[in-house]
Amino acid sequence: MIKGISHIGIAVRSLDEQIPYYKDVLGLPLLGIETVQDQGVKVAMFQVGDTRIELLEPLSEESPIAKFLEKRGEGFHHIAYGVDNCESALKTAEEKGIRLIDHKPRLGAGGHLIGFLHPKSTYGILTELTQEHEES
Amino acid sequence: MIKGISHIGIAVRSLDEQIPYYKDVLGLPLLGIETVQDQGVKVAMFQVGDTRIELLEPLSEESPIAKFLEKRGEGFHHIAYGVDNCESALKTAEEKGIRLIDHKPRLGAGGHLIGFLHPKSTYGILTELTQEHEES
Repeated sequence: MIKGISHIGIAVRSLDEQIPYYKDVLGLPLLGIETVQDQGVKVAMFQVGDTRIELLEPLSEESPIAKFLEKRGEGFHHIAYGVDNCESALKTAEEKGIRLIDHKPRLGAGGHLIGFLHPKSTYGILTELTQEHEES
Repeated sequence: MIKGISHIGIAVRSLDEQIPYYKDVLGLPLLGIETVQDQGVKVAMFQVGDTRIELLEPLSEESPIAKFLEKRGEGFHHIAYGVDNCESALKTAEEKGIRLIDHKPRLGAGGHLIGFLHPKSTYGILTELTQEHEES
C-alpha cells in the first residue's frame, strides 16, 4: 500500500531560524512556504531526492505543533508515507488493528488528501498517509 | 552534497515487537537484520520507495540507544542523508559552522562510511551523512 516516504515532518520554533541550515548547509532546494490555517502551522518544504523535509512552525499557542514543542522541544514530529488511495489505506490499517486519528481523509498542505494513524498504535511514531496528486 | 534520504533511524525496545507493524501493517519489505557490535545495536532494515526505515534495538544498557530510550522513549532517533563522499561532506558541514560528532568517517551498518553531525548544531535532529556503496 505504501509507495515511499512522502515527507518527514519536523517541529520548529522558527522557520526563519532553521531555513538557512536546510538551504545553505545541507543545500536542499526550498520548494515553498505555505500557511495551513486549519492545522495552525506555517510550513516550509524542501526537496531531498525523491522525498521532502517539512518544517512546521506553529501559528499560535493553540496549534498542535506549539503543544508538541512545549512537551518535546524541537525535533522529529511525524513521518508521512505516500499511498495511492488514502481512504482505502486508512481502512486497511484499521482492519489490521491500528487506531486512527482520522477515519476519513482530510486536506493537508499542498492540497493532498491525508490521514493520521495514532502514535499509540505505531510505537510513538506519529504516522501520516498521504495521497499525492500527480505532478503536472 | 546530498542525494536523498538514505534512511530514517527509529529507536525501539524490541525488534521482535515492532517488526510485524512495519512488515505486515505497512507492508514494507524487510531487507535484513544485522548486529553492529561497536555501536551496541541490533538493526532491522526495511525498504520504502528509494529509502529505508532502520529500527535500532540496544544490545545492552550501555548502548547509546538504551540511553536514548531511557531519556526520550521509543521514537525517531536520526535522519541519514546519502552523500557521494562522506569525508568531504563532513568537512563542508564543519566549514559552514556545524559541530561534528565524527570528524572522520567510520564504518556503520551495511559497511557504509558514515559520520554524524551534532544535534546541537542541527536544532535537535541527530543527522548522519552516509556514503553508500553502489549496489551490485
